[in-house]
Amino acid sequence: MGFTFQINKDVQFCRNEQLLEKAQACIPQLHHTEVFPQRYVKAVDDAGMLGGIGVRETAAPEDALGKGDTVILDFGRHVTGSFSAHIDHHGSPMDAPLWLKIRFAEVPFELTSDINAYDGWLSSSWIQEESVHMDVLPAELVLSRRYSFRYVMITVMDTSPKWKVSFDRISVQAVSSAPEVYEPLQVHDDMLRKIADVSTATLAECMQEVFEDGPKRDRRLWLGDLRLQALADYAVFGETDIVRHCMYLFAAMTASDGRISANVFTSPDYQPDDSFLFDYSLFLTSVLYDYERFRYDEETLRDLYPVCRQMMVYARTFVDEDGCLRLPEEYPVFIDWSDAFDKSTAGQAVMIFVLRQFIELAGLCGEDAGEWQDLLARMERYAVQELFDENTGMFVSGAHKEINIASQVWMVLAGVLDHAHNHELMRKAVQELFPVHGIATPYMYHHIVQALFEAGLDDEAVSLMKAYWGKMIAMGADTFWEAFDPERPEYSPYGSPVVSSFCHAWSCTPVWLIRKYINREEF
Amino acid sequence: MGFTFQINKDVQFCRNEQLLEKAQACIPQLHHTEVFPQRYVKAVDDAGMLGGIGVRETAAPEDALGKGDTVILDFGRHVTGSFSAHIDHHGSPMDAPLWLKIRFAEVPFELTSDINAYDGWLSSSWIQEESVHMDVLPAELVLSRRYSFRYVMITVMDTSPKWKVSFDRISVQAVSSAPEVYEPLQVHDDMLRKIADVSTATLAECMQEVFEDGPKRDRRLWLGDLRLQALADYAVFGETDIVRHCMYLFAAMTASDGRISANVFTSPDYQPDDSFLFDYSLFLTSVLYDYERFRYDEETLRDLYPVCRQMMVYARTFVDEDGCLRLPEEYPVFIDWSDAFDKSTAGQAVMIFVLRQFIELAGLCGEDAGEWQDLLARMERYAVQELFDENTGMFVSGAHKEINIASQVWMVLAGVLDHAHNHELMRKAVQELFPVHGIATPYMYHHIVQALFEAGLDDEAVSLMKAYWGKMIAMGADTFWEAFDPERPEYSPYGSPVVSSFCHAWSCTPVWLIRKYINREEF
Repeated sequence: MGFTFQINKDVQFCRNEQLLEKAQACIPQLHHTEVFPQRYVKAVDDAGMLGGIGVRETAAPEDALGKGDTVILDFGRHVTGSFSAHIDHHGSPMDAPLWLKIRFAEVPFELTSDINAYDGWLSSSWIQEESVHMDVLPAELVLSRRYSFRYVMITVMDTSPKWKVSFDRISVQAVSSAPEVYEPLQVHDDMLRKIADVSTATLAECMQEVFEDGPKRDRRLWLGDLRLQALADYAVFGETDIVRHCMYLFAAMTASDGRISANVFTSPDYQPDDSFLFDYSLFLTSVLYDYERFRYDEETLRDLYPVCRQMMVYARTFVDEDGCLRLPEEYPVFIDWSDAFDKSTAGQAVMIFVLRQFIELAGLCGEDAGEWQDLLARMERYAVQELFDENTGMFVSGAHKEINIASQVWMVLAGVLDHAHNHELMRKAVQELFPVHGIATPYMYHHIVQALFEAGLDDEAVSLMKAYWGKMIAMGADTFWEAFDPERPEYSPYGSPVVSSFCHAWSCTPVWLIRKYINREEF
Repeated sequence: MGFTFQINKDVQFCRNEQLLEKAQACIPQLHHTEVFPQRYVKAVDDAGMLGGIGVRETAAPEDALGKGDTVILDFGRHVTGSFSAHIDHHGSPMDAPLWLKIRFAEVPFELTSDINAYDGWLSSSWIQEESVHMDVLPAELVLSRRYSFRYVMITVMDTSPKWKVSFDRISVQAVSSAPEVYEPLQVHDDMLRKIADVSTATLAECMQEVFEDGPKRDRRLWLGDLRLQALADYAVFGETDIVRHCMYLFAAMTASDGRISANVFTSPDYQPDDSFLFDYSLFLTSVLYDYERFRYDEETLRDLYPVCRQMMVYARTFVDEDGCLRLPEEYPVFIDWSDAFDKSTAGQAVMIFVLRQFIELAGLCGEDAGEWQDLLARMERYAVQELFDENTGMFVSGAHKEINIASQVWMVLAGVLDHAHNHELMRKAVQELFPVHGIATPYMYHHIVQALFEAGLDDEAVSLMKAYWGKMIAMGADTFWEAFDPERPEYSPYGSPVVSSFCHAWSCTPVWLIRKYINREEF
């Protein structure tokens, strides 16, 4: 994910060394693969592609390259890894250093963007461009950082009038903890198969030592993203080490009041971020619940349930006597990037959704869940009695009784109505609220599609999946993007593609949606 | 030095492995010294300083640095070496990479220059600015390249709104092959002592594995510069390994016709440049002559004399029957950067100057120098009879009988007139041609000052030395510059200080001039 900045310097954190040790014991193994460029390309105007920029194959340069010359290499797929090349000079002896700029791009649009013009609120340090000087050639250029890209643009900033340079043995040491061999999902529909394949590639690229949100940016483990990545992983790879590693990291470093961080840092040390999102905090329960359903694991359950319970005890303090969740401003729900809609009803629904899973976990642990059943009942009653509007047949949110898509979707997922009412609710939502407005995250679109499936509106679910993820593929996606608003396909959340992530894990869920709701396979 | 580009791809070179082995046997030892910044400064307008920019001390930053913050560190002296710093972050965990720009500056003027505006004919790859990304902090930043500077400007391009950075343990591993302990020249005059000290610093910084022309740029061994560096070295350090190393390199890799390259490259392999300057080629003889006078060394004499002889045989082909040197366009004399004056008479004088030294070397080797004496007599006769103009009492040059300073100076150094006539000639030169116009190289100014001393115009020599090198010091020089035109102190040969060298070896000679002509010490 990626979000407005919270700065909470004074939070006290606990550090459970025993859980950290267990986290370390299941660090997934990284696999390295050498990947080579497939062809030379040039950036061209292409109205159908993201930002109106595509690529066209070109011949390899016939001569060595001099000042101002540029080449673009296409690796043929999205890769995450380190870059190296052998560089030699041609002509007279090298009477000056070589100066290069090397830009890494996930999408062609990044190749043509003016990076100096970027002035957004996200750090410009994410821009994947290096300035490199080499004093002696021939030499191996080995860039030490990890990049995330399909295209590499090399610009010769300067040599000297007396010599030029050539590049060969260009390669990438690609890295991922996704298994190198796996059985792809069987999908009969062509477009859905493409969507499943791109979902799988997106997930695999984000699977590093942790589930990263995006290998270009933020390269970090977020709890909300972890929940979706783990589901997609079960659907295609079934790798559980990385899921356990991530869960233990969150569980080992909670705030002293029980809150769970929205994300954790893993380098140079394990460290929780001082950002907190109410729904993300709750989702550790959800990740544990999904994990235990996928592969029952008593040890992990016993280790992590108390952390989920402590969080739930803390969350409960925000629920009033009537069963209404009232969150303080400094502990918001995320639901979606957009702040243009009221999220209180969706937040109520998320807590109900998680509470239901928590009660099952309590049962698995042999705990009496009576008090939690009561809480659940109170919150459900409030939802149905106070938040459901009989006139419109939809849930309302906030003081102004706003009707938005997030409230309907999360109430369906929370299961506060019976199947027939859910069906009716989502039918109305499609009728009244589609096409969806103002939502740019695959994260929210995932929940909309899932709610459609849950409500038995399979055709609408498939059609939305194709319209959303399929449209990204039509616009050139090799991996799915951090943000995409089909109503505004040019929309870039940061004003420039150079800091956007075009391989972003919260968009990888179609592979899970297809396996669960279309293939209807048990896994 | 630094010059217009010759491209002579088809030159055949010899490679004398025996001489190369001897070159390798006397590679000078590099000394490493850790140097620390002395203070924080800021760049300020200062009309008296080079480019109108000086520095003023400022307090160390009280807080950590964020986006857009800049600090300038002053190392208190010119250093050549590698840079390192310990960098940490402060605030929330590091949620983005750190992006820095680090600029190294020999003079304050470089700190304020817009490097993107540079569009000169010298490679922009010489600009000493790096763009650095760091993904994990705290960390040691160790830049692998060698820089030449007194000031380091660190600009924090971006962090994130959640954290800032601090720098400590900043240091430079300074490197030089000049001896760490030596006896400074005794000079009583204050300004001359300062000039001697800055000369010594300039020479020491250029003493690396070879005598480099400038440690910032070109970092390369040029024969004309070597000649002056060796003289200054004898005057202050008396290190002969580096002189022998450099002489053997030139001697080992001549063109197959006997021409000696204007410069050689030493990394990754020893390789002669394909640029040739007639006077520079001749100067290997001059360097050997000065070396043998400083420390008689029969082995080196026997090894290198044949190479000097072969060059002289080749040079002789350009002298006509009347004793006039007529050079082809592709083998010019350098004399000075300026191409705005006729150099044929100065070229004639340089050959006479060197021929005289060559004849002495031939004698030392026990060779019959009869043919060379004849050549010398013929060339001197031509100079006196055809190039000296009785009317003006000065030497003329070229078809238009141009009177310029270079002709007078080199004819004095060549000794074609007796002392009284030399005195009269330089008196006239001072009268007619001073202040010197259109000359920007310390290289030419050195020869003017030397000619004044040789002609017995000591006061004029000292006064010119003070006016030229002293003026650089007054304008802030810690080491002497590649180019300086006292009539146009703002003049930058490349249009921008960012590619100029402000520690340039051909400006280091005052220490030799003072010891030889003022102290009148034997050494």
